[in-house]
Amino acid sequence: MPKTTDVNRQLVLVKRPTGMADGDTVGMRNTWVPAPGPGEALARVRFLSIDPAIRTWMADTPGDLPPIEVGDVVRSAGVAEIVGSNSERYRPGDLVFGMTGWQDYVIADEADRAMRVLPPGIEPTAPLGVLGINGLTAYFGMLDVGRVSAGAVVVVSGAAGATGSIAGQIARIKGAAKVIGIAGGPDKCKWIVDDLGFDEAIDYRAGGLETALQAAAPQGIDLYYDNVGGSILDACLANLAHGARVVLCGFISGYNATEPITGPANYPMLIFRSATMAGFEIQNYADRYASAQADIVQWIAAGRLKSAEHVIDGLERAPDALNLLFSGANTGKLVVRI
Amino acid sequence: MPKTTDVNRQLVLVKRPTGMADGDTVGMRNTWVPAPGPGEALARVRFLSIDPAIRTWMADTPGDLPPIEVGDVVRSAGVAEIVGSNSERYRPGDLVFGMTGWQDYVIADEADRAMRVLPPGIEPTAPLGVLGINGLTAYFGMLDVGRVSAGAVVVVSGAAGATGSIAGQIARIKGAAKVIGIAGGPDKCKWIVDDLGFDEAIDYRAGGLETALQAAAPQGIDLYYDNVGGSILDACLANLAHGARVVLCGFISGYNATEPITGPANYPMLIFRSATMAGFEIQNYADRYASAQADIVQWIAAGRLKSAEHVIDGLERAPDALNLLFSGANTGKLVVRI
Repeated sequence: MPKTTDVNRQLVLVKRPTGMADGDTVGMRNTWVPAPGPGEALARVRFLSIDPAIRTWMADTPGDLPPIEVGDVVRSAGVAEIVGSNSERYRPGDLVFGMTGWQDYVIADEADRAMRVLPPGIEPTAPLGVLGINGLTAYFGMLDVGRVSAGAVVVVSGAAGATGSIAGQIARIKGAAKVIGIAGGPDKCKWIVDDLGFDEAIDYRAGGLETALQAAAPQGIDLYYDNVGGSILDACLANLAHGARVVLCGFISGYNATEPITGPANYPMLIFRSATMAGFEIQNYADRYASAQADIVQWIAAGRLKSAEHVIDGLERAPDALNLLFSGANTGKLVVRI
Repeated sequence: MPKTTDVNRQLVLVKRPTGMADGDTVGMRNTWVPAPGPGEALARVRFLSIDPAIRTWMADTPGDLPPIEVGDVVRSAGVAEIVGSNSERYRPGDLVFGMTGWQDYVIADEADRAMRVLPPGIEPTAPLGVLGINGLTAYFGMLDVGRVSAGAVVVVSGAAGATGSIAGQIARIKGAAKVIGIAGGPDKCKWIVDDLGFDEAIDYRAGGLETALQAAAPQGIDLYYDNVGGSILDACLANLAHGARVVLCGFISGYNATEPITGPANYPMLIFRSATMAGFEIQNYADRYASAQADIVQWIAAGRLKSAEHVIDGLERAPDALNLLFSGANTGKLVVRI
């Protein structure tokens, strides 16, 4: 077990970013390794989950959780290994998953039900992606909010991302007539079709998205799973089928905006197509996480669901990794290995 | 029966408007009264329904129906009296309701199921408003799309308009905890509270709408029935309660827009509140019109639902009447009496 005279590196929020996070946003602070109190354990952080939500928490705007306070460790999901314990719940060597933050060490409090021990046989990074927030968001967004049905024409944006790549595959598993992914660049487009089984991919960087969607879905889009917002959301709204559903999962195009974001000018298509646009917060489904994860595990085992990880090494590179998300440089789940 | 040498005045679309319809948009054309063929009747138009949709049909943009062609009679719902008939379905003296257009005379074809004979005992203008598209839109929008429930905090915009005034009263009838109307000017606000039984009215022209909504609905809005779009939609989105529903009925703020309309910048609140925004086309409910009208008739008879009409005299004033809608000068249903 590390000593309390050992260093715990922490990345703290120094200044709320304007636009992309930059060198002024996050700073490294060296503190001491904390000593676990009664009922607590000390855990060494092994992997960090790099999620767009982190950027939204850096801003002082409404969101799913309160903003990160300036001076606080950057909030982040992660996987850590128990290295010392005063709790019967955590044994040294256990891997735990929860809100570790961007730091080397974290205290796992046995009263914190959100810090959970990983069952054996699970890949250490799975709880960060395919079995974690991304997989669950894809699952409930596609099934409960989107109500995907056999025969539906489905479009997913951010389709090479951690959530979109799973959402499209779940639509495939559920018998969608056609699953169309929107992604940036030919490599990602090739990957989602050749490796993940999407029926078609549209490279939004190639331009002419609205026309490409019309060609790919001539009868209109029955279900659009939106991870990005912005002009891609507008192009999909313009191509909705009657009775379509739009699932709002995120709006990554807006997270670094320095001006107020623009709303979807084509939202009246919801009227002209008797369509519905619905947002959701994944925590509403907490009582069904276990059954969703069981389905996902089964699909993975059957070779029907694939996930990819994009690994960056080093705690100090977490801020750069966050920006990679927004430049669209990652394919699959972005994680930092410490 | 008028002779075919008598004049039939027709208001035709001369030029698609930019912004509000003006003197160049519509022109009067004198033609001859048409002669009804076999199975047809001739009807004298008595009342025209002045609806925001007419302005949208004048534009060459997607909508519920195709645009009015330049040179064609302006499309409009109306009530007409049969003055000559070669059909067993129509007898002279019958009042019929359907798409009469802005003209003195219209041919009622017995094959046109949308041109219906008014049952006895119905006010001649009722099919244009409270029993027509406005009442039905309010009914299905509030009940089926909005799923209004007892205890809900409901906000209606365009609350002194033909649809909004009925929508708010239906929410009241269904036991909403609070019905808040947004309208323009103190007279309308007084009318919806004192005469129609809204719990509260907010005058959007007084400014500070978002704050006023926060004060009126401190726990958030459960159901927002939107007739207007624009900044009022954004202010309501900012004040949604968890699990809220937004019913998109129309966007009168955008119908005269000369620039592409602005989408609701606050749409991400749908994510943060697990909320849903749904549009609808009233024709999807055609098989339930009769039962809805029966409910409405009963509510009127019981004194629980009131409607008001704003009558303008003269076919030639129909274009001005249309613009009154957009300047917000009308209270209740706007009709032209010929």
